[in-house]
Amino acid sequence: MSDKILIVNYKAYIHAFTQNGVTIAEAARKLRAKLSSTRIILAVPSPLLYKILEIYDDVYLQHVDPVSPGSHTGFLPAKALEYLPVKGTLVNHSEHKLVYRSIVQIIDDVRYVGKEVVACADTPGEAAGLAYIRPTMIAVEPPELIGTGIPVSKAKPEIITNGVKAVHSVDPSIPVLAGAGITSGEDAVKSLELGASGVLVASAIVKAKDPAGKLEELAIAMDTF
Amino acid sequence: MSDKILIVNYKAYIHAFTQNGVTIAEAARKLRAKLSSTRIILAVPSPLLYKILEIYDDVYLQHVDPVSPGSHTGFLPAKALEYLPVKGTLVNHSEHKLVYRSIVQIIDDVRYVGKEVVACADTPGEAAGLAYIRPTMIAVEPPELIGTGIPVSKAKPEIITNGVKAVHSVDPSIPVLAGAGITSGEDAVKSLELGASGVLVASAIVKAKDPAGKLEELAIAMDTF
Amino acid sequence: MSDKILIVNYKAYIHAFTQNGVTIAEAARKLRAKLSSTRIILAVPSPLLYKILEIYDDVYLQHVDPVSPGSHTGFLPAKALEYLPVKGTLVNHSEHKLVYRSIVQIIDDVRYVGKEVVACADTPGEAAGLAYIRPTMIAVEPPELIGTGIPVSKAKPEIITNGVKAVHSVDPSIPVLAGAGITSGEDAVKSLELGASGVLVASAIVKAKDPAGKLEELAIAMDTF
Amino acid sequence: MSDKILIVNYKAYIHAFTQNGVTIAEAARKLRAKLSSTRIILAVPSPLLYKILEIYDDVYLQHVDPVSPGSHTGFLPAKALEYLPVKGTLVNHSEHKLVYRSIVQIIDDVRYVGKEVVACADTPGEAAGLAYIRPTMIAVEPPELIGTGIPVSKAKPEIITNGVKAVHSVDPSIPVLAGAGITSGEDAVKSLELGASGVLVASAIVKAKDPAGKLEELAIAMDTF
Repeated sequence: MSDKILIVNYKAYIHAFTQNGVTIAEAARKLRAKLSSTRIILAVPSPLLYKILEIYDDVYLQHVDPVSPGSHTGFLPAKALEYLPVKGTLVNHSEHKLVYRSIVQIIDDVRYVGKEVVACADTPGEAAGLAYIRPTMIAVEPPELIGTGIPVSKAKPEIITNGVKAVHSVDPSIPVLAGAGITSGEDAVKSLELGASGVLVASAIVKAKDPAGKLEELAIAMDTF
Repeated sequence: MSDKILIVNYKAYIHAFTQNGVTIAEAARKLRAKLSSTRIILAVPSPLLYKILEIYDDVYLQHVDPVSPGSHTGFLPAKALEYLPVKGTLVNHSEHKLVYRSIVQIIDDVRYVGKEVVACADTPGEAAGLAYIRPTMIAVEPPELIGTGIPVSKAKPEIITNGVKAVHSVDPSIPVLAGAGITSGEDAVKSLELGASGVLVASAIVKAKDPAGKLEELAIAMDTF
Repeated sequence: MSDKILIVNYKAYIHAFTQNGVTIAEAARKLRAKLSSTRIILAVPSPLLYKILEIYDDVYLQHVDPVSPGSHTGFLPAKALEYLPVKGTLVNHSEHKLVYRSIVQIIDDVRYVGKEVVACADTPGEAAGLAYIRPTMIAVEPPELIGTGIPVSKAKPEIITNGVKAVHSVDPSIPVLAGAGITSGEDAVKSLELGASGVLVASAIVKAKDPAGKLEELAIAMDTF
Repeated sequence: MSDKILIVNYKAYIHAFTQNGVTIAEAARKLRAKLSSTRIILAVPSPLLYKILEIYDDVYLQHVDPVSPGSHTGFLPAKALEYLPVKGTLVNHSEHKLVYRSIVQIIDDVRYVGKEVVACADTPGEAAGLAYIRPTMIAVEPPELIGTGIPVSKAKPEIITNGVKAVHSVDPSIPVLAGAGITSGEDAVKSLELGASGVLVASAIVKAKDPAGKLEELAIAMDTF
């Protein structure tokens, strides 16, 4: 069976840049021995890439840009992932939305260089459109719940079931992740029960007082499912 | 006397991510012993930050974003520089223009955390406006010459002299750099003769067959001036 | 049966602002008596709205903005259509792309005030995503053919058939229009044969030496189909 | 002596599209006979252009775009003003900021076709940069006061005096307007006393219960100064 996915999005919380960011990476490394069917991916701020890679090797960027390598200052071409030891990237996150055409360019470029790309959607409808571009995975996150601590799996379970349905009506092989407000192992497991292949979590882990403990709670709960 | 400044902008050239990027950093380190009054700054793609820092320690980012630390995915808050071992950042580069209000936020935030910020301008007029925000330095680069190999110091010397004049009419303590088309030690020295405190160079070094040799040519010429 | 749709997009061609713009409106008015099953919609630059409305009453705007009425300068809230004597608007045109979330807001707002909205897509995949938002119609236009005079109906007929299929897999009641490179009555009819409910045309009519004659050619050919 | 300037920015308030928009235009027309040294300019939403022009002829647009005439959908090229019976346009309003390079293109294009352009700035520094582009006038409006009813002339008079000083250090022939929170004839006169050549007003007139009376209050007070 393929792995259940737990993506920890560091975002640009100050905690991402302080000790919490390192602690989460160390915890992810230690958890690996305990997990049999769950994969933890850390989506880190780009300047921290090599720093986190010294600790943990399953790392994503949070965004890449729809430009080709060349004279672009302060933009990261999707194809540059070929030269970086990352596994992949998020794209079109709720906090970094792009027009469809740019998402197409990024997904095509990332897959061209053999890396993974998780495309994010607000709704099942947006997810269905993204499914046509064949990203590695699709995450559905209702923006009104992001960062609230109110889990999508409880407040809007139909977003998950309809998101899975919409994506799989286009391509049943694309795993669908759920996100927004997921705070506990219970929330994560509920998402899996609703048909998701994994979850995206951010503040609940990154801003936690005990980020290692919180990460372990979610990962173990998912792995046990 | 304060140092003359040589900024090497790696941009997003594929060469930035391959061996050239490392070679330039090694060359910069070796040159340090030979230079008495010239400072080399490397403006690198953000994911390479810690990799280049293992080789050379006078490093800038190419861009930061006008957001505060928090729930922003794939954006880098200017204030996050506090937690990164960089010396500073470029802002408003010709290939990454921002509205004035955003430049104000970034310059204020970067200076607040004690780092340097080089604000870029197309024209003396834009430079004058930026001078009011008190960046560490201002670079004037006419966009029509960037990447052409036609040096601003030869093709449009009045951009440099008028840029220096416009900036210093607001604040005579702000060093003014010149850029666009600078390819040789001669071009760099000519820029200094016209009143610039340094230069920005990109393709001439980053895409050079012998990037170390080219970097040395410019740095030694400037240091001898 | 419902009408076949012929949308003339004036774009921002200089001809839109000169006599051609008026000539097209007059021709559209005169054609009405000759057409039994074809509707001509003119999508005009916003400042020309009331000028064109003096001549012809089936007029769209080319774009509205995803903002609510209020303190916005130089933006047009979608809900302001309630107070304007237009029939509707285009949204997400190939030359004015928006993120999905903004398209949702605009379609919802335009429909809320009882007007029509034609959502544009580059590809069948983008069109499928838009179908979930229930615009009045969806137009599929491959950007690489726009303005070329190479008709989508001949060069890429599968874009039309797949576009119709993708949209109707979500909602079979949404009419699908075709666009890009359509220059002749033959191109328009071919689009209808492929399953489109109408076409979008711009340069072929707006920049024509005889815009009235060209409009008549397309409208009569479609009406005869 | 040249006229004092009173610009009424309709913004995208719902009142701009309802009877208030017409009432203000009628009041402006009637006031003309009473005013000897004050010019009232109405900056209207673009779709209302020809409707308002039937009533009053000193009309601006609120924004034009930095594109040349051509295949642009839902954008208004600055040079299209040549074909529209407007006097000019605002640019870079606090609610529609542009990068410097785009402001240059717009000001150049608008002046090329012989129309007026009022460039807006948040601060004296931004205003100084704009002065180098030679717009017809420059308006300084601190964004934190816009729409508050707290007049810049009272809360931050130094913004006006420093704005005038900064602009005139570059070109003493450019009139400087003041804006933000201006609500009464007294606020407007205070702005003139501080060295402004006129004011920008929006909500105080557009959202007034008696917009004609409010417009008259400001215009007569300014004219009497």
